[in-house]
Formats: sequence, C-alpha cells, structure tokens
Amino acid sequence: MKSLKDRILSGDKRSIGRAISAVEDARPEATELLKDIFAHTGKATVIGITGAPGAGKSTLVDRLAAHYRAAGEQVGIIAVDPSSPFTGGALLGDRIRMQNMATDPGIFIRSMASRGHLGGLARATVDAVAILDAGGYNRVIVETVGVGQDEVDVVRAADVTVVVLVPGMGDEVQAMKAGIMEIGDVFAINKADREGVLRTERELETLLSISERSDGWTPPIIKTVATENSGTEALAAAIADYKQFIGDKGAQADGRRINTAEHRIIELLRERLLKTALNKGVTDAQLRELASDVAERRRDPYSVVDEIIKRIGIQ
Amino acid sequence: MKSLKDRILSGDKRSIGRAISAVEDARPEATELLKDIFAHTGKATVIGITGAPGAGKSTLVDRLAAHYRAAGEQVGIIAVDPSSPFTGGALLGDRIRMQNMATDPGIFIRSMASRGHLGGLARATVDAVAILDAGGYNRVIVETVGVGQDEVDVVRAADVTVVVLVPGMGDEVQAMKAGIMEIGDVFAINKADREGVLRTERELETLLSISERSDGWTPPIIKTVATENSGTEALAAAIADYKQFIGDKGAQADGRRINTAEHRIIELLRERLLKTALNKGVTDAQLRELASDVAERRRDPYSVVDEIIKRIGIQ
Repeated sequence: MKSLKDRILSGDKRSIGRAISAVEDARPEATELLKDIFAHTGKATVIGITGAPGAGKSTLVDRLAAHYRAAGEQVGIIAVDPSSPFTGGALLGDRIRMQNMATDPGIFIRSMASRGHLGGLARATVDAVAILDAGGYNRVIVETVGVGQDEVDVVRAADVTVVVLVPGMGDEVQAMKAGIMEIGDVFAINKADREGVLRTERELETLLSISERSDGWTPPIIKTVATENSGTEALAAAIADYKQFIGDKGAQADGRRINTAEHRIIELLRERLLKTALNKGVTDAQLRELASDVAERRRDPYSVVDEIIKRIGIQ
Repeated sequence: MKSLKDRILSGDKRSIGRAISAVEDARPEATELLKDIFAHTGKATVIGITGAPGAGKSTLVDRLAAHYRAAGEQVGIIAVDPSSPFTGGALLGDRIRMQNMATDPGIFIRSMASRGHLGGLARATVDAVAILDAGGYNRVIVETVGVGQDEVDVVRAADVTVVVLVPGMGDEVQAMKAGIMEIGDVFAINKADREGVLRTERELETLLSISERSDGWTPPIIKTVATENSGTEALAAAIADYKQFIGDKGAQADGRRINTAEHRIIELLRERLLKTALNKGVTDAQLRELASDVAERRRDPYSVVDEIIKRIGIQ
C-alpha cells in the first residue's frame, strides 16, 4: 500500500483533499506530511488573485483555469474566504463552482475559511498550495477577497499577484491605494464593457505612475469581461510575463523568495507557539475563568498573559 | 510631576498620543501602563465602523463624531488602515482629517497601521481604545476598511458594530454575506441619494431576515447621506438602541464580554510568545539564514520551526 505522500505525489485527488483538510485543522500528521513533500514543491506557478467583493474574481479565475486547461496544464484553485466569526463558512458561490468543475480531472478546487482564533488561514493556505504543487498542479490559483492583513499574507506568498478592479471604482481605487495597489504585479479591469472603464484605467495608470516598485516592473493593466471570456489570454500572457521577468532577475528574485520563506517560518512559529502555550500553560476551563475575570475587570489581561507565559516556563 | 498614568487619566492629549505610539510599537513600558490604567477602562461606548473601500465611512465617522460633540461627549477616533506590505503607511485621507479635527479639544483622532509581521494590529487597536477610554473619551469610534480577519478582530472588540454599504452593491452584498454581514449590529446604507438604494435595502432586508442572531436582535437599516449630514441622528440613535438592548440582556451580554476578553488574552499571548521566541530562539541573522535555506529548499520550514521551538525549551 502506497503512503499518503506517494499518493499525493501521484496526483490522487482524494489524498490531496484529505491532506488539505489535515493542514486546515492543523493536525500533527499534517506537519510530518508537509516535511516529507517539501522537496517536491516549487514547481508550480502560484497566482494570487485579489480585489474587492463583487469584482467578478471567481468568474475570472474560472476563465483563467479553463485557459490553462486548454494548454494542457493541471490547475489547482484555492478560494480563500473572508473569515466569518459566526459560521466560519465558505461562500455559496464556491460550492456551486466546485460542483461544475469537479468533473474535470485536471482541476482541483477547494474553498478555505478560517476556523476561529487558532485558524492561521494564511499558513493553511500556503500549506495547501504546497500540497497541490507536490500533487502535480503546475498552475495554482489562490483567490482571495478583500484588503485585510490575512489577504495580504496570502497573496504575498504567490509568484504573481493579480488585482482585479471594476469600472467606476474611482473612490475605491483611491481608498485601496495604500493596501492592495502595491501588491499587484498585474491589474485586471474586469467588467470592462461597463461605463467608466477608461476613467478607471486612467486613474489606475496615474496611481501606478507615481508608485515606485523596487523590482523595476511596470504592472500591466488588462481589460477583461470574464462573463464573455474576453481578455483571458491577455491576462494569462501578462502573468507569464511577470513570472519570466522575475525569473530573470536573479539575486533580487532570491531576496523576494527569502522574504517569503522568512514570513512563512514566522507564521508557522506563531501558530505552534500558541498551540503549545494553550496545551501546556492553561486549560480551557482556566482560560474561560481568566477571561471572565478580565471581562469583570477583576484582573487585567496583561498580567494574565504574564502568568500563562510563566507557567510554560519561557519567561 | 504627574505619572504618565495620571496624565492619561486627566485626559492630556499629548500623553495619550505617546501612550498609543508605545502600544503600536509594543514597547515593554506600554504593557506596564496598560496594567495600571486597566481598572479605569470600560466606561466608553466603543463603536466599530466597517465596510468596503469607497463606502464613505470616513465622512460618516466625522458626522457621527460631530453629533456626539454637539451632545457634549468626548470622542476618540481610531482609523485602522488596511496593512500595506510596502509602505505600512496611513491613508492620505486620514491625515487630512486629522488636521481638520485636531483643533477640537474634545476629539482625539489617530490613524493606525500594521507594522510588519510582528504588528498585532488588532491587539494594538484594542490597547489604543483602552487608553482613550481611560483618558475620558466616552465615545470611541474604530473605523476599519475591508473584510479580512484583522478587521473582524478589530470590530469584534467593539460594543456596537456598524456596517456601511452603498446603493448598487448587489453583488457585493451577496459576496460579503459570509463575512461582514454577520458582524453588523446596525447597517448604514450611505450615499442613499443614489440610484438603487431601495434595491440594496430590500436585498439587505432579505439577507437579514434569513440570518439568525443568537442575541435576538434585528439589526436596523439606516439610510444616510454623510456628505449632507443626513441620517446621522438616526444612526446615533440606532447605535444607542443596540447598546441599551445588549445592556439589558444580563447573562447573555456577559457571555459576549467573556468571549471578547478570551480573544484578547489569546491575541496578547500570541504576540508575547512570538516576541519571546524571536528574542531567545533565533537571532535575526540566523533567521535570515534559515529562510534562505527554506527558499532554496535545502530545508523545510516545518523542521526549522521545530528547531527554534526546541531552542526556546518549551517542546
């Protein structure tokens, strides 16, 4: 009988799905598996796609996936949900997509959501990408909604990041400037058959012209109408261009990769430390009791944390 | 000479500003200060305001602040930036606002941004709220952009959360459903003089009618035109209503407060653990070396983390 590692390396979808569930739940065996497969990763082009809700990212991702499939590539898709504090659930849309695409053996699609405060969504997403990479998916698309730190962390680990905008987002372009703007290697203006596309393009060009990238790349702006499959090839070409550009940069690209690796080590460390602390330093019931003390202002949270740290013995 | 604690308690703006800088930088003296002032917190109504970029949140916050000022309240405003991985900078708009409002002695406005991976933006924001609370600001408004985990964490610590939408966000309302929808105690449809306001209101009503809140509250929908100061009073009244409602709930409200306190303890713990680990387990140069090994796939990040954990001695 083949090991889970071997089944993943041979591209077995069921094993890949199970392994992703294990990383989502941060199960101990997931860490061992990830150690085993790590040497088999690094072959995929990882594409991060982000932008405001309603920009049509999902449709664009589907079109891009179909484009890669037609070119004979294996495509993994990870749709990262904004975390819901109440349901922790996946977007309805993704569930529908999963049913439609699940019949293609060359596509693996998975929706991921944070699971409460031990979540580590960014960490779990990066691990899931590694599993798909090892499983032979040479195009991995990570789709994420929003402009929060979690989303930034997720796309930071991508080789190429596409920011999706829609016409008439003048205000939004301004507001998003400080956040998402600077992480886009490629910009897509989707729904480009709508009014205001030229104005949005002009505003975006202006913003990009005053931003300076340390790698010297000028992010291209691609107009797409995902619902009509228009602009998909241009988008794929722009993604390939940036991947090529950064591949040619040598040492500078190494710097980016080292930053990404450092970030990943820190995220893993953060999660492991908290897990260890909650296992060794305090029981669930004790934590609840301490939280109650803090809520009633009988104690302050800072000295509570001092106490937990002391119990673990690393003070 | 008065202590920093006493100066904060007497409402000295400069001391409050310095204390917030200290919590942003996670300086050790900040923790001591927070312990000292903790018993003086819990008096403010903390209002979280969130929604997509471009929804007009800043203007709405300004109007609400002016409304509270007219009623004789002291108003603290914290504008939480989506983190920029490149600049870490604050939104330009906030800087302009700060200049306009800084002349009113009863308003304290501050922009906060994440500072890299040790950031702990949610933790720093909650600490800053505590400082303003202790400083006598009895209305503290926390304004945040986006739908990421960081934003959710920030508003989770608020007494009342307002989600701001704009007309014509049909798609967005659907897409945001899983995230932001469920954290709104009050919904504001801003720019309500625009076309499509009734449709947005109807869609929102439908969504709210199928969502069930454990506290039995039905979130009101308030139409505002912040630029014309229309709807501000209704919004303030809705905020006060929910605060009253939850105050009357007794034990159930305690549960919410205990959850918030538990979350806060965990966030503080997470940050302290990582800081300790990076101080004790690995130097910056060693971390860079390890990251380089991982980037080149000479080592996997999981066993690197094992090693760091072992060095700290809590394995």
